[in-house]
Amino acid sequence: MEITTAMQSKVLIHALPYIQKYANKTVVIKYGGNAMTDAQLKNDVMNDLVLLTLVGIKVVLVHGGGPEITDLLTRMGKESRFVGGLRYTDAETAEVAQMVLAGKINKSLVSLLQQHKGKAIGLCGIDGNMFQVKKHIAQEDLGFVGDVVSVNTHPIEMALENGYIPVISTVGADEAGNIYNINADTAAAQIAAALGSENLIVMTDIKGLLRDKNDDSTLIPFVQVSEVPYLIRQGIISGGMIPKVECCVEAVRRGVKKAVIIDGRIPHSILVEIFSDEGIGTMFQ
Amino acid sequence: MEITTAMQSKVLIHALPYIQKYANKTVVIKYGGNAMTDAQLKNDVMNDLVLLTLVGIKVVLVHGGGPEITDLLTRMGKESRFVGGLRYTDAETAEVAQMVLAGKINKSLVSLLQQHKGKAIGLCGIDGNMFQVKKHIAQEDLGFVGDVVSVNTHPIEMALENGYIPVISTVGADEAGNIYNINADTAAAQIAAALGSENLIVMTDIKGLLRDKNDDSTLIPFVQVSEVPYLIRQGIISGGMIPKVECCVEAVRRGVKKAVIIDGRIPHSILVEIFSDEGIGTMFQ
Amino acid sequence: MEITTAMQSKVLIHALPYIQKYANKTVVIKYGGNAMTDAQLKNDVMNDLVLLTLVGIKVVLVHGGGPEITDLLTRMGKESRFVGGLRYTDAETAEVAQMVLAGKINKSLVSLLQQHKGKAIGLCGIDGNMFQVKKHIAQEDLGFVGDVVSVNTHPIEMALENGYIPVISTVGADEAGNIYNINADTAAAQIAAALGSENLIVMTDIKGLLRDKNDDSTLIPFVQVSEVPYLIRQGIISGGMIPKVECCVEAVRRGVKKAVIIDGRIPHSILVEIFSDEGIGTMFQ
Amino acid sequence: MEITTAMQSKVLIHALPYIQKYANKTVVIKYGGNAMTDAQLKNDVMNDLVLLTLVGIKVVLVHGGGPEITDLLTRMGKESRFVGGLRYTDAETAEVAQMVLAGKINKSLVSLLQQHKGKAIGLCGIDGNMFQVKKHIAQEDLGFVGDVVSVNTHPIEMALENGYIPVISTVGADEAGNIYNINADTAAAQIAAALGSENLIVMTDIKGLLRDKNDDSTLIPFVQVSEVPYLIRQGIISGGMIPKVECCVEAVRRGVKKAVIIDGRIPHSILVEIFSDEGIGTMFQ
Amino acid sequence: MEITTAMQSKVLIHALPYIQKYANKTVVIKYGGNAMTDAQLKNDVMNDLVLLTLVGIKVVLVHGGGPEITDLLTRMGKESRFVGGLRYTDAETAEVAQMVLAGKINKSLVSLLQQHKGKAIGLCGIDGNMFQVKKHIAQEDLGFVGDVVSVNTHPIEMALENGYIPVISTVGADEAGNIYNINADTAAAQIAAALGSENLIVMTDIKGLLRDKNDDSTLIPFVQVSEVPYLIRQGIISGGMIPKVECCVEAVRRGVKKAVIIDGRIPHSILVEIFSDEGIGTMFQ
Amino acid sequence: MEITTAMQSKVLIHALPYIQKYANKTVVIKYGGNAMTDAQLKNDVMNDLVLLTLVGIKVVLVHGGGPEITDLLTRMGKESRFVGGLRYTDAETAEVAQMVLAGKINKSLVSLLQQHKGKAIGLCGIDGNMFQVKKHIAQEDLGFVGDVVSVNTHPIEMALENGYIPVISTVGADEAGNIYNINADTAAAQIAAALGSENLIVMTDIKGLLRDKNDDSTLIPFVQVSEVPYLIRQGIISGGMIPKVECCVEAVRRGVKKAVIIDGRIPHSILVEIFSDEGIGTMFQ
Repeated sequence: MEITTAMQSKVLIHALPYIQKYANKTVVIKYGGNAMTDAQLKNDVMNDLVLLTLVGIKVVLVHGGGPEITDLLTRMGKESRFVGGLRYTDAETAEVAQMVLAGKINKSLVSLLQQHKGKAIGLCGIDGNMFQVKKHIAQEDLGFVGDVVSVNTHPIEMALENGYIPVISTVGADEAGNIYNINADTAAAQIAAALGSENLIVMTDIKGLLRDKNDDSTLIPFVQVSEVPYLIRQGIISGGMIPKVECCVEAVRRGVKKAVIIDGRIPHSILVEIFSDEGIGTMFQ
Repeated sequence: MEITTAMQSKVLIHALPYIQKYANKTVVIKYGGNAMTDAQLKNDVMNDLVLLTLVGIKVVLVHGGGPEITDLLTRMGKESRFVGGLRYTDAETAEVAQMVLAGKINKSLVSLLQQHKGKAIGLCGIDGNMFQVKKHIAQEDLGFVGDVVSVNTHPIEMALENGYIPVISTVGADEAGNIYNINADTAAAQIAAALGSENLIVMTDIKGLLRDKNDDSTLIPFVQVSEVPYLIRQGIISGGMIPKVECCVEAVRRGVKKAVIIDGRIPHSILVEIFSDEGIGTMFQ
Repeated sequence: MEITTAMQSKVLIHALPYIQKYANKTVVIKYGGNAMTDAQLKNDVMNDLVLLTLVGIKVVLVHGGGPEITDLLTRMGKESRFVGGLRYTDAETAEVAQMVLAGKINKSLVSLLQQHKGKAIGLCGIDGNMFQVKKHIAQEDLGFVGDVVSVNTHPIEMALENGYIPVISTVGADEAGNIYNINADTAAAQIAAALGSENLIVMTDIKGLLRDKNDDSTLIPFVQVSEVPYLIRQGIISGGMIPKVECCVEAVRRGVKKAVIIDGRIPHSILVEIFSDEGIGTMFQ
Repeated sequence: MEITTAMQSKVLIHALPYIQKYANKTVVIKYGGNAMTDAQLKNDVMNDLVLLTLVGIKVVLVHGGGPEITDLLTRMGKESRFVGGLRYTDAETAEVAQMVLAGKINKSLVSLLQQHKGKAIGLCGIDGNMFQVKKHIAQEDLGFVGDVVSVNTHPIEMALENGYIPVISTVGADEAGNIYNINADTAAAQIAAALGSENLIVMTDIKGLLRDKNDDSTLIPFVQVSEVPYLIRQGIISGGMIPKVECCVEAVRRGVKKAVIIDGRIPHSILVEIFSDEGIGTMFQ
Repeated sequence: MEITTAMQSKVLIHALPYIQKYANKTVVIKYGGNAMTDAQLKNDVMNDLVLLTLVGIKVVLVHGGGPEITDLLTRMGKESRFVGGLRYTDAETAEVAQMVLAGKINKSLVSLLQQHKGKAIGLCGIDGNMFQVKKHIAQEDLGFVGDVVSVNTHPIEMALENGYIPVISTVGADEAGNIYNINADTAAAQIAAALGSENLIVMTDIKGLLRDKNDDSTLIPFVQVSEVPYLIRQGIISGGMIPKVECCVEAVRRGVKKAVIIDGRIPHSILVEIFSDEGIGTMFQ
Repeated sequence: MEITTAMQSKVLIHALPYIQKYANKTVVIKYGGNAMTDAQLKNDVMNDLVLLTLVGIKVVLVHGGGPEITDLLTRMGKESRFVGGLRYTDAETAEVAQMVLAGKINKSLVSLLQQHKGKAIGLCGIDGNMFQVKKHIAQEDLGFVGDVVSVNTHPIEMALENGYIPVISTVGADEAGNIYNINADTAAAQIAAALGSENLIVMTDIKGLLRDKNDDSTLIPFVQVSEVPYLIRQGIISGGMIPKVECCVEAVRRGVKKAVIIDGRIPHSILVEIFSDEGIGTMFQ
């Protein structure tokens, strides 16, 4: 594919105002799915994040890691148990989550960003009392599953002001020192809101919100948060999409300029989302 | 022409490091030729300059204006006389040059940049004692044609630090207050050197330096300044190209990272020159 | 004339508090008339302005230049036409005004200040969008004669903060880029008001406001702006004095501490006006 | 035990100059042994560290965690193997060390400090490229055991300047992203040297350096680093003390004012060491 | 008296939070009585004040000096006369007070602090217009006895910010330049209030406020300022204690956190007062 | 005496460059003689000093006070004894000098400056360890007469930076706390040198240095410091003039731009000295 001078100038003329718009703005990225397991996509994402910082965007990376928790529990001969889609988390499981998320995945992402010439710092909700946590209340007791009551943004801002990408594991502690595992989508939305970030980008393994789940050509590019209840009643937003969309709604309601669900399987989807007119995936505003 | 997501990401991945590289750097542009007379090109250039400032590049615009001086002299019933390619400049001609360059062209460019949402300030070599000038000595007396002895960059830096594009007319005064007309290519090179600018871009009406003047496909994209004497002896650099090339050599010798002669007839040539791997025209380094 | 130690100390004891009072204050001077055409007076004024800056006063110089516009038009074979005292300004005349004011007079004043060891920068209403301009509406169409709607003081303040005397031509552009010629008295008053300046000094070729036009001994040294309508009705303020007085009234109404019409024919009139108890000319407050 | 006013004033008069001496100085504490396993001692240490920060001392906490690594390996059904006192570290063991040190112990210490009203941030050698690491070369291949080549202090200083106690796990990565386990005593000495810290305090389970290993009353309170080779030849420094002493020597040689081996079994040993004339344990200088 | 490690750590653990609490806080000390005449106590006080500054406390020392005024008057052959406990102060006596307080005692205290390695500056109420003074009105005319109307804290704050202990004589002048002698207790209270100081410490020659004047074991350690009228009516606060207590009440009412009357005869009473839980003497809050 | 506009402008044109030259410069004035005893002259001096500060000059006032010391000693029934022109100073005399200079004269000058709307702070050589003092060694023992070994300018600069005129008494203490009386001319010269001041002005009761002591018309307006030994050998500088001239020489040798001996009996002599071309008295350079 040949790229002509005219094409270059056209892309640049469209991109430059976005670059200026995002300069010194904060973008929170919830990282997960294929983009976190496929080696090539993973490298592309790290590369894109470093590029974003090069043009002055403040990037915050929030990650999950369910499959790897299951894996270590298995290696320790312990079975994973799920209740209504959520992992039942006894004290030993919470400790394993802490080790896998804050010890393994977090520091390995920091290392990978640095291999791509970025600067990064790995933090979790415990560091600098970042998350105030309380036990998540559900119909059935889920053990040490936590909700974020509020976010102390100081440790994140300190990292950003010093030129680091903060990489955040969603593990937290209550005042008595009990460790809790926390849903990463929800935590990312709360971090985005607390930071007054410009943008929340949730990476998934789907095209975006589809009018017909089986037809990628029915992508809904833009949703007003006020339309969401109607779309849920219509069944267009359903199942596992509901909590993801609710995170987006929550973020926008609390001042984030836009929240987007994008398809992490498309190479460089973050870059195109930020620097083009159309964007990709579904944007909530 | 359809631009795909993959093409967008490819252009951006190449452009972003250049954007970062040029952030807070100074680029001096010698503006002239068709790009200054063709209305569409003129608007494109103004647009591109404003875009450059959006991503943090400090743009300095240096302009000439020979044809318009001739024009006003004609309207005043005075003939233009040239000696060895240089205008013979008596006191009245110097005054006309001052009026046309610093009064008409300069302020009209400032106005045009502002119509494109830019911020600009028009200055000439007299303002803030920007140019120290002495009479240009040639075989034949040329009257009030001046050479820049040194450049006081303070007024230019003041404008840049306050977010303005300085638009500079190359008119100067000596200590006795005599007004001199100064060659704009040479002055641009000296401004670029004195500012320690990253880049000097000279806009012309040719493709660049050609190995065969009549064949655009023989463009020489890159020249080491040490090769220049050889290329002159070979006749590849000749005629009107010699002074333009010598400006580039002078700028590079005094610390400018690269000096480029580009084809101002190509739309958005400045943008593509700055934000792509290949560049266009001929680069001196 | 022998000046004794006692006389020196008396002058200084009176002057020092004024020097302190004006330190870091802004004074706008409308420059014109004999003081701008007589070579000795011109040098005296430039010298005085530089002295003012030496003791920390921020000087802004606003100039006109009607006679020189007429002169260039004549040299171009074009007749000047006046309507109710104001120059009819077609597009060509506007361009000539721009060249003469912003190109010739402005830069020559900058050069002259610098010959007196001052630091100066020449600007016009176009630079940095200093003047927002609209067409002046009169009984008869005057062409490109403009009114200043508002003044963006940033370019002026930038120059002052960097130690330059801003020399300002009263040429402006509207949003479409049309050039307008603007009355310098009015513009000076609006600049003074927008800067919150301490003082507006209008240099004229008369003694000040006289109770009897033909008797210099009837000078009125002080006028309350509220008395002006009465003085107009009485015929004491009449003819060409009316617009000048109205500028002073406008400036005082918008917060300038005092506005003074002084006799530019008296050597060093600015100095004596600022640094003595009595002042000279007529002060409006 | 009654403490009288006279005793209070005596302790304070001795302590206050130390408090002043250490204000804004950095103290690196290598934490380990009983003080890390006994619950009461652990709480006392955390309390003392927070007190130190209250009087303006910059505290850096470096911890090990060998027993807990062994414990998790055992739970995963994997045996620990030691070669010449050092753990043989295959890739799986390195990953376990990373999880236990940077995930579990580190974040739990952060949480504990915060329960004592301190502010803390957990980091490891990977964060912000803190450690440049290369494979440790020994007679026998030890796998992923690393040496710190140099310390980038920026992440530590960022934490200190923002009022946090940096809690540091001695895990690092090389440029290819391989994870290494690093000896905590050595790393603490290198951190102390790189920070130009005032003091390195190594907590152990012994009284200090004893002239007769079996007689606590033969404690050597002060050793000049130049005497160390002699003491090794004499057999007074022997066995496991040699590497600990060598860390102290290295720190002092590189500019740390004093390095101390203290008995972590004595409650509040850090406080008394810093704020009294005598100190406790053995000081190297 | 042997001080054990456990005792040291106990004293420090109690003292450190106070040290942190007082860091950068201002403490005003009214100095007088035995602590100012007994050579050993005087040296102890100077030593303690310097120690306080070492840990970041801003110390302001206000002193009196009645006995030395009487002494100089006697040497000059002039008798002292007292009216209702206050010295009758004619112009000559005021001048003597000025010389003794601001010339002798003040500068000698500055010298003594500096012999203890402190930094000090001696000021009086005249310097920098620190005190606005008016004549004290009593039943009988007391001559040049003054009341402080308000305190300009700038000279004191200048000294503190530059690391000096301001030593203040309570002499002042009215606008006509008349010199007044001012009660030091009252002035100290007003200085403490104007500075928004944390603490006012009044040194006396008694144990504190006693329920039974003849029994030191009846010390009242803590008084709420609202209880004071009741205690006066009960006769528990009486005689010379009334004005001292009223100063404390005034200081607390105007925002000083606590005011304390301490026994200056106890060595290091200031140190123990500030750095222990119990305090000594009587605290008003 | 009528002062015309032309005279005003002439004085101002000469004075303004001096005003600018002295802006932010330090001038040390040794105050004494008639100018300190005549009430009208005293008020004129205070007024002039305040005017100097108004135009940004940093004024330091150093004063003596021998006659008032003698006066108090007399009132105390103690005789003054002089040895070779210097006062024999036993401990009691030193204490009297401290009281009179630092207590009475100093604070009264501060008060007087403030009555003239100035801001002042009274200091002596003890404050902030301003003077390092040692005993003056002469043929005969003079008791507590001191020499200034070096000047710590910090307290003076602190006062100047905060807008105060420092008024300085030349009393100092050695490290043991002994009080010394110090010659004010010498101390003023050393202060001027240590401050790197622009100017040292010594006020006397003579016209300046006269070629013929009995003929005021033989005033020597300018002396190069290198000529001084010759002038002493010639007898032109003799008697009490020698130490005053030597102070000026010392000041100039150590970097003071000029030192002047002026006639304090001429009203406003300081003003005329600083702001005119000729100066008055004798200048040493």
